[in-house]
Amino acid sequence: MAVINTALQDNVGTITFNDPEHRNMLSGALIDEMLQSIGALQKGRMRVLVIRAPKGSKVWSAGHDVHELPLPGRDPLSYHDPLVTVLRSIQSLPIPVIAMIEGSVWGGACDLALSCDILIGAPSASFCMTPAKIGVPYNVSGILHFMNIMGVNFAKEMFFTAEPLSAEQASKAGLLNHLVEADELEEFTYNMAHKITRNSPLSIGVIKEQIRLLASAHPLSPLTFERVQGLRRTVYDSKDYAEGIKAFLEKRPPVFTGD
Amino acid sequence: MAVINTALQDNVGTITFNDPEHRNMLSGALIDEMLQSIGALQKGRMRVLVIRAPKGSKVWSAGHDVHELPLPGRDPLSYHDPLVTVLRSIQSLPIPVIAMIEGSVWGGACDLALSCDILIGAPSASFCMTPAKIGVPYNVSGILHFMNIMGVNFAKEMFFTAEPLSAEQASKAGLLNHLVEADELEEFTYNMAHKITRNSPLSIGVIKEQIRLLASAHPLSPLTFERVQGLRRTVYDSKDYAEGIKAFLEKRPPVFTGD
Amino acid sequence: MAVINTALQDNVGTITFNDPEHRNMLSGALIDEMLQSIGALQKGRMRVLVIRAPKGSKVWSAGHDVHELPLPGRDPLSYHDPLVTVLRSIQSLPIPVIAMIEGSVWGGACDLALSCDILIGAPSASFCMTPAKIGVPYNVSGILHFMNIMGVNFAKEMFFTAEPLSAEQASKAGLLNHLVEADELEEFTYNMAHKITRNSPLSIGVIKEQIRLLASAHPLSPLTFERVQGLRRTVYDSKDYAEGIKAFLEKRPPVFTGD
Amino acid sequence: MAVINTALQDNVGTITFNDPEHRNMLSGALIDEMLQSIGALQKGRMRVLVIRAPKGSKVWSAGHDVHELPLPGRDPLSYHDPLVTVLRSIQSLPIPVIAMIEGSVWGGACDLALSCDILIGAPSASFCMTPAKIGVPYNVSGILHFMNIMGVNFAKEMFFTAEPLSAEQASKAGLLNHLVEADELEEFTYNMAHKITRNSPLSIGVIKEQIRLLASAHPLSPLTFERVQGLRRTVYDSKDYAEGIKAFLEKRPPVFTGD
Amino acid sequence: MAVINTALQDNVGTITFNDPEHRNMLSGALIDEMLQSIGALQKGRMRVLVIRAPKGSKVWSAGHDVHELPLPGRDPLSYHDPLVTVLRSIQSLPIPVIAMIEGSVWGGACDLALSCDILIGAPSASFCMTPAKIGVPYNVSGILHFMNIMGVNFAKEMFFTAEPLSAEQASKAGLLNHLVEADELEEFTYNMAHKITRNSPLSIGVIKEQIRLLASAHPLSPLTFERVQGLRRTVYDSKDYAEGIKAFLEKRPPVFTGD
Amino acid sequence: MAVINTALQDNVGTITFNDPEHRNMLSGALIDEMLQSIGALQKGRMRVLVIRAPKGSKVWSAGHDVHELPLPGRDPLSYHDPLVTVLRSIQSLPIPVIAMIEGSVWGGACDLALSCDILIGAPSASFCMTPAKIGVPYNVSGILHFMNIMGVNFAKEMFFTAEPLSAEQASKAGLLNHLVEADELEEFTYNMAHKITRNSPLSIGVIKEQIRLLASAHPLSPLTFERVQGLRRTVYDSKDYAEGIKAFLEKRPPVFTGD
Ligand code: NI
Ligand code: NI
Ligand code: NI
Repeated sequence: MAVINTALQDNVGTITFNDPEHRNMLSGALIDEMLQSIGALQKGRMRVLVIRAPKGSKVWSAGHDVHELPLPGRDPLSYHDPLVTVLRSIQSLPIPVIAMIEGSVWGGACDLALSCDILIGAPSASFCMTPAKIGVPYNVSGILHFMNIMGVNFAKEMFFTAEPLSAEQASKAGLLNHLVEADELEEFTYNMAHKITRNSPLSIGVIKEQIRLLASAHPLSPLTFERVQGLRRTVYDSKDYAEGIKAFLEKRPPVFTGD
Repeated sequence: MAVINTALQDNVGTITFNDPEHRNMLSGALIDEMLQSIGALQKGRMRVLVIRAPKGSKVWSAGHDVHELPLPGRDPLSYHDPLVTVLRSIQSLPIPVIAMIEGSVWGGACDLALSCDILIGAPSASFCMTPAKIGVPYNVSGILHFMNIMGVNFAKEMFFTAEPLSAEQASKAGLLNHLVEADELEEFTYNMAHKITRNSPLSIGVIKEQIRLLASAHPLSPLTFERVQGLRRTVYDSKDYAEGIKAFLEKRPPVFTGD
Repeated sequence: MAVINTALQDNVGTITFNDPEHRNMLSGALIDEMLQSIGALQKGRMRVLVIRAPKGSKVWSAGHDVHELPLPGRDPLSYHDPLVTVLRSIQSLPIPVIAMIEGSVWGGACDLALSCDILIGAPSASFCMTPAKIGVPYNVSGILHFMNIMGVNFAKEMFFTAEPLSAEQASKAGLLNHLVEADELEEFTYNMAHKITRNSPLSIGVIKEQIRLLASAHPLSPLTFERVQGLRRTVYDSKDYAEGIKAFLEKRPPVFTGD
Repeated sequence: MAVINTALQDNVGTITFNDPEHRNMLSGALIDEMLQSIGALQKGRMRVLVIRAPKGSKVWSAGHDVHELPLPGRDPLSYHDPLVTVLRSIQSLPIPVIAMIEGSVWGGACDLALSCDILIGAPSASFCMTPAKIGVPYNVSGILHFMNIMGVNFAKEMFFTAEPLSAEQASKAGLLNHLVEADELEEFTYNMAHKITRNSPLSIGVIKEQIRLLASAHPLSPLTFERVQGLRRTVYDSKDYAEGIKAFLEKRPPVFTGD
Repeated sequence: MAVINTALQDNVGTITFNDPEHRNMLSGALIDEMLQSIGALQKGRMRVLVIRAPKGSKVWSAGHDVHELPLPGRDPLSYHDPLVTVLRSIQSLPIPVIAMIEGSVWGGACDLALSCDILIGAPSASFCMTPAKIGVPYNVSGILHFMNIMGVNFAKEMFFTAEPLSAEQASKAGLLNHLVEADELEEFTYNMAHKITRNSPLSIGVIKEQIRLLASAHPLSPLTFERVQGLRRTVYDSKDYAEGIKAFLEKRPPVFTGD
Repeated sequence: MAVINTALQDNVGTITFNDPEHRNMLSGALIDEMLQSIGALQKGRMRVLVIRAPKGSKVWSAGHDVHELPLPGRDPLSYHDPLVTVLRSIQSLPIPVIAMIEGSVWGGACDLALSCDILIGAPSASFCMTPAKIGVPYNVSGILHFMNIMGVNFAKEMFFTAEPLSAEQASKAGLLNHLVEADELEEFTYNMAHKITRNSPLSIGVIKEQIRLLASAHPLSPLTFERVQGLRRTVYDSKDYAEGIKAFLEKRPPVFTGD
């Protein structure tokens, strides 16, 4: 059964999460549907894509499905994982993608929202980066992603505290392009989308690609990168990592010892 | 006849756009005058340069002269074009350049304003990046320039919508250092300029150069860059590009098909 | 006699500047004590470090001890200088460091505050970057540091004017994560610190290291870097540099000629 | 009519140039056939590809078809040109490609030969880089390619003199992996090819891709690259460039003035 | 029992492999002893280190102990593995390390030999890179290492064929600094070592470090690196990888299918 | 009195060292003359420059004038030093520079010879890099220069042993493009020079600049570079550095202690 809905009107595509039971969790199944939808929409001359939850949602998306994390000893955020794949797919789409956000956004879903080009939120929007709560060593390109949008200080606070950022704070930190009232959210978003459809898709496509490449252009030497991967492996091989996942699934606070 | 005015007082140079008939468009002629003025001012121990329009201007500058764009099939933003040359000249001046802004700023003139080191605006200031409206594939160093000042999200919105950013939004996005009332604009700006003239010009000069180099230090491999140039060439060889320029000159909305 | 105080409670370490006579200047002696304290605290399972001045301080820290600058002809900000060493030590600590700030912060102490991961300030906080006032050519990694946190425009204004940034401006520029009332400062700060102690220290440690590496990943070619070092040497070999230091020590405004 | 022949035996594919009339010139037509052949061979579990001319050829390939160069004012080596496309295709093939060389190799065909992973030549092999003879500004990734294989000094001599490098010199410069007698060339080459087919194709594929990425990892800042493109444009807009092509087509020595 | 011998005379340290039974395989035990020896030698004012096998050895070292490779699904060349650790240790030693080589050098031992600064070989020396024979995805910094010393073409041949390079070929490819007769090998090597001990150790130490950093300075963007790690993971998760190790341990040729 | 001779014939310029008394040492005076000659020659439509010593010289150039090294505590190879300046000037000349070499080449003169684009030597040529003999911490761009031409292994041996490389070895290491008999040296060199003058100077100029930029494109992060400068400073602040210079001037072997 469909866990997302898809629509295309006047060159504006819309993907609406539709799995309220699981708080629109980014399960492998939901991601598969998204990738297929995106493929289908592109055949229909889509010039802007809006990603959203149903009107009035309390949770935009609960993020990663922790049940689907690999066993300890395996990198939980590797290149071909479904979540990482869909993030790249959105970043590489040659059209603007707008995240229209009501409700809370968790973990991997933050990364999904930030992978969109323009973020428009209602006052109920909030953003919480949870890896430090579970013990996950986040991946390098994901962290760079947050730094590029929010600056270094806000990215650190978000990752280190694992506390939700309110819509107001997200607006101040530059994560939200616009914070608008809940009842104006749709109109505001689709107005912007329609304006964009009248501009040159070729010009926009190449500018988006240039920004993607420049934003990623913080190159590291092979030695430095391999050191980072070594550090990350130490974390996903650790007792704390196993404890973090176990505690999450048992719905209790984890007890981390640093081992 | 002069399309800019030049002054130097107490080590503070001023260049005032003075071509209201053409909305202070950055024509080849205006840019030539600017380059000459800058050269002349530097001989006079200028320690700060202010770039401005006349008091009360509705338009700070209308940007690129679209009549001067090269024929389709040629890169419209190449290294030796007058606009690109004057941007580099301002970025490389070993003294601080302050943009004092009243009125609207369009296309290439946004890039000129952002090439200044410090931007001070009145409430009438607005900023509109127009390449997606005309179909122009913007150049890499120009896009990096916007990203470095506004962050990734705001830069994308500005380029993709080609809608004016109000003074308030520009202030929030970090494009304006200061937003001050119209009648305080001059005093505020020249106060800051004079303070700077009392600091060490050698220390300032080297710090400005270091920031210029660091901000540009998002290096790309030759292969990546050539791919980007290939994409950009596809755009300026396209039908849409010809349509964009034609429509602009005919003062009608363009019809883009993506071809 | 101790010029700092050290405490550790519930895995939160605190270093309190305690040299009011010298306005908590970052003398070689104070820095030595800091380095030793940090080492000692780390043995005690510290998971967050707070750096602060005593409650109600007018000056958080006066920065570099200008008496300790090397003679002209020597780089005043070289890799093994005490200040530069303690900055690296804070940036490399595998735990979050919070700067809790009341009062004014000067020169090198700004760099110290910005080397902390999260900055929380009271309304009395202010930040002043003074090198252009003394004639010092700041170092490349220090300048990059400011750019990464404040963006290009605000960093330029701060360095070129050498004027204090108020707490409000610092908050707007993204330098302060939070601006809170003086009487709530402690509670707000330690609340955040305690929340962080409950998260995974391994996950946090590797994320902090990744951010450190990515933020520094603005690489320059050897030729470019040696040119910059040549420019910086011209500055610290200049008459103006000698004048800047002399004037500061004589407590009079410097007279810079650009030679 | 086919200008190449294709074969596949024991997992070793072979592409043989077969256009002796035009000295195996890399015309658009020949390149199209190569791209199609490569595609077809890959479906047949090819694990090594050999590129060669017929036994005893005096000319391995005459290189670029100068008739197909774009008009002056257009980059003659842009990303989507047929020659540049086939070079990338060979470099990106996830299997080893061996150039087996008898006879002279000219201009673009040198770049093709060097795009192969392993070069094996007979004493009749020679290599001549002709752009300085025609007045072409070579592209950045192509030049890097020569530097990576031959070192800086030999690459400069080859480009600046536009004189043929003999098989012996090519062997000394590291361009040829092996220099073998003409009558042993085939056996030597196919022996090596068959050995490779017995090794792990997955391991080889990823190692080839890593070498490709590392060899290209000489990143340049956008500003530097745009300066280079500006210099190159000056060349292909010049009188000398038009003269170079004209002289080549008229089979007379060019007269270059530097304008 | 000791599997290496250690000596220090006239500031020249020597580590001699001494595990002929296991063909001087780089087992965890042997590497531990090496790391300890290096530590001990450094306390004794060693200024050059020679690494060698006993006079007349048929095998210099058989390389990696395949029994110690991790299970499929884990990166076999990760940052903290013993072999990778000892390579870094030699590369980072602030003194020159000379590899004095008689006999065959296999797999990881090639990387060890190439990690030395200067290689001197007898005619019996040979070098064989075996990962493609076993199905191992080699690591990025290791591959860069070979490229820096041998150039791109020879590195590719060595990895793709997994055939031994003779001393003569190694000399031609620049892998060996000197190829000398077996009975002159010791004298030649220790003569050079003693000459080096008379030069400035500080100057040499910093030059070695600069070369190490420059040689590694082929930086890649996080996205590119994560793609490579994804490709490598596909390989060590594959059936072929399991087959390669199994076949090696069963001393039979592997049968690779590409799956 | 002139310490160099200058000639220009058929678009080939020649600079001949002419200070046999001082073994063609690269004194400030000699370098000044070179810089002026180069400037003058460029006005005369020079298309190739040959740098040479008089026929039959035993010493091509003795290198740096050690008397002119700055006092300990100052970087002896900084950006604006005469030697470093002339190296850049040759590397940036938009025409090929050929070093025609008879006799021995010492220290800084090696760097000068390697700064030429093509090196042609007689059997009497030899090359000796002396910094480790004097205790000088060589500069980063200089070391990169040697690595790019000779590969890593040979560069290390040359720097660490400070022993002369014979013409034969230099040829094998790729430092010499051609090794020719003494009595053919002139003819061989000027033949090549004249061939080059008939090729496109614009094409050659831009290719040389591209090679210069690519060869320097081994970028390092600011932090890494500042660490290297810190290490280098430790060396030129050391006792050993003072001893090295003193011993050289006293013509006795230095005694280095590592302090
Ligand atoms: Ni950046
Ligand atoms: Ni950046
Ligand atoms: Ni390289």
